[in-house]
Amino acid sequence: MPTPLRLGIAGLGTVGAGVVKIVGRHAALLERRAGRPIVISAVSARSRTKNRDVDLSAFAWEDDPVALARRGDVDVLVEVMGGSDGPARAATEAAIAAGKDVVTANKALLALHGQALAEAAEAKGHVIRFEAAVAGGIPVVKALTEGLAGNEIRRVVGVMNGTCNYILTRMESAGLPYAEVFEEALQLGYLEADPNLDVGGIDAGHKLSLLAAIAFGTRVAFDAVELEGIGNILIDDIRHAADMGFRIKLLGVAQMTGRGLEQRMSPCLVPADSPLGQLQGGTNMVVLEGDAVGQIVLRGAGAGQGPTASAVMADVIEIARGTRISTFGQPAATLAHATPAKASAAAPYYLRMALADKPGALAKVATVLGEEGISIDRMRQYGHADVSAPVLIVTHKCTRTAVDHAFARLPATGVVLGGPVALRIENV
Amino acid sequence: MPTPLRLGIAGLGTVGAGVVKIVGRHAALLERRAGRPIVISAVSARSRTKNRDVDLSAFAWEDDPVALARRGDVDVLVEVMGGSDGPARAATEAAIAAGKDVVTANKALLALHGQALAEAAEAKGHVIRFEAAVAGGIPVVKALTEGLAGNEIRRVVGVMNGTCNYILTRMESAGLPYAEVFEEALQLGYLEADPNLDVGGIDAGHKLSLLAAIAFGTRVAFDAVELEGIGNILIDDIRHAADMGFRIKLLGVAQMTGRGLEQRMSPCLVPADSPLGQLQGGTNMVVLEGDAVGQIVLRGAGAGQGPTASAVMADVIEIARGTRISTFGQPAATLAHATPAKASAAAPYYLRMALADKPGALAKVATVLGEEGISIDRMRQYGHADVSAPVLIVTHKCTRTAVDHAFARLPATGVVLGGPVALRIENV
Repeated sequence: MPTPLRLGIAGLGTVGAGVVKIVGRHAALLERRAGRPIVISAVSARSRTKNRDVDLSAFAWEDDPVALARRGDVDVLVEVMGGSDGPARAATEAAIAAGKDVVTANKALLALHGQALAEAAEAKGHVIRFEAAVAGGIPVVKALTEGLAGNEIRRVVGVMNGTCNYILTRMESAGLPYAEVFEEALQLGYLEADPNLDVGGIDAGHKLSLLAAIAFGTRVAFDAVELEGIGNILIDDIRHAADMGFRIKLLGVAQMTGRGLEQRMSPCLVPADSPLGQLQGGTNMVVLEGDAVGQIVLRGAGAGQGPTASAVMADVIEIARGTRISTFGQPAATLAHATPAKASAAAPYYLRMALADKPGALAKVATVLGEEGISIDRMRQYGHADVSAPVLIVTHKCTRTAVDHAFARLPATGVVLGGPVALRIENV
Repeated sequence: MPTPLRLGIAGLGTVGAGVVKIVGRHAALLERRAGRPIVISAVSARSRTKNRDVDLSAFAWEDDPVALARRGDVDVLVEVMGGSDGPARAATEAAIAAGKDVVTANKALLALHGQALAEAAEAKGHVIRFEAAVAGGIPVVKALTEGLAGNEIRRVVGVMNGTCNYILTRMESAGLPYAEVFEEALQLGYLEADPNLDVGGIDAGHKLSLLAAIAFGTRVAFDAVELEGIGNILIDDIRHAADMGFRIKLLGVAQMTGRGLEQRMSPCLVPADSPLGQLQGGTNMVVLEGDAVGQIVLRGAGAGQGPTASAVMADVIEIARGTRISTFGQPAATLAHATPAKASAAAPYYLRMALADKPGALAKVATVLGEEGISIDRMRQYGHADVSAPVLIVTHKCTRTAVDHAFARLPATGVVLGGPVALRIENV
């Protein structure tokens, strides 16, 4: 009679309830695949009485997730509370100290404390797994850590925040401005309690930093991710981009370059007919590029009860099967300190600005760009009803530094109204 | 000092040479990730002198792959010779008998003998892993066996033969007939020694049957795969399909239904703007549908030295890390005998036929279809220069049995010239 693997579930929100459902619904299937029963010993959440559409009566209840983590009848702490500190961190640390494995969906926790937590777990021969923390149901942590482990990874690119992708695709399809769609998403409950985690790119940046650690064998360096949110994107940017065959996505890119580790999470233009460009709504996509395998593209639901619980269960089953893989694919103590790249690689840029409607305005702008080494690939001036003429420029490859220098000089031309916008174009 | 994992490579074709290259190029990276060195002890191939662009001088040579499999300094047999029987089977059996793990890229071997081989290996506590056997570099075996292990799998769909996809996309892009593109592919070395393995759908059928075993916990049943090759596809079919917004793909579908396990590998119409429809050339795509995770799409190179060797190395690293997973995701002895579904589920069909150019011809065909319960969604009659009028019909959902019954009655109408063609439409 094989020994059951006993879970303690800390957090009974959408994801926690989803895990309880799968464990209940698929007991026989899970036992067949894992080689042993998977059972829930105890659960913990803030409210014991909230209706969660699951029967919790068979499980012990703990008000305190730390007490849950320490229980003698818990082999694995399933941490699905969220939050980079507070109870999630305390429970995870308690589980590790008590010599238990941890499965977590918590990107913030790992992005900020992953190195210390992984080292502590590995020192005791235990594992922390986090498939659910990145791109929901897509098994991308597994693909990168295991499936592509024979590759030197060249680049990781992805749309990893479904809420931002929902906002951007909804702006395009409904022709609504950012503020209005943001409000909609808020009402629909799509946004984190602190919406800036989503629209500021922080949540997606957390995820990118975790994938980068695995990909490049480097310590998680979330503070080195260049972050830019989607709050400045106008409906006009989306329309202009579409006119030129592009869509705007909040895109994460991590790559090791001669200048160091580049990690960016920012709104970018991607070809409208590319796999990334065609991504609609809350769907996530991650592109992994390895020296042997070439390009692997993974697509699926980036959030939601079923997909996220599916990812949690993949980790639970892995542990039940006896698989022991280091959190970041190699012992945390052996991860290198990455030097952050000082500037990102050259790329074409989309520039949007409003010019005063007077002769010679465009020439002045073009001169500044030229003097900064930025050459123009395509340019469009749109019809306008007032004194400002919207101008869109697609540049040839140039550096962000050159764009910044040029932008710093534009006010002196006296023809540029308001702040210009620069979005990178990624031909993924 | 950790113990190295010692490989014996049987087969030094494209894939074998690719494995030798990765082991040589990434020794330090592999050791960091696997936790121990991965080394090659010995190799075996038909010709010792052939130029393979790799240095083999450090490895022992065996003329006989069975002798290789039995060597005391080999922990894992990497079988990349191919062929469902003969040396590949003998070497695999010898390795298992000698208590070694096996990593194979051989879909034919596993599709025909996987059950017996897996049972034999598992009886001795050893594993057979085969990531490279399905969809080249895409880590789909891992995604299904591990990443989606918490799901009841609903359906597996995929384009898994790059050569067929190359032929079909090349026919479309160059406007060339099948025979001509087939000849091109032959000259380019894209086809197996027996081309029917590719264009007859057999190779892709092998792969589908392996994924189905994992997905549904059933014994590999390649002989139950309904196989239909691409040899009857006309350039006109491709054009007509395109006119109606579809592309033709050799599509594998496996799903468990109330009628039993359905496994089909056949040319189908898919929406041209769907991920499957947009798949070009040798690229593979597999769509996995689970009850919790929803739809996961994986895309990447389906063949080639780097991608296939990448998949082999994923399995090797898995073994080096100490991960032990049953070949089909649960012990082979516990796999169920699937009842093959007698007929596939209803779907819309694309029907192509040539009608005699005389009044009432179309009405006669429509009457037969109607009497068999097939209702017409769309119909197009094309201009024609001779006595036969090409007619395309898209039906509403109907069964293949109904189509077959109707086709059997068409000759009696006296208005249908030659054999009509029916292709299923899959809205994946």
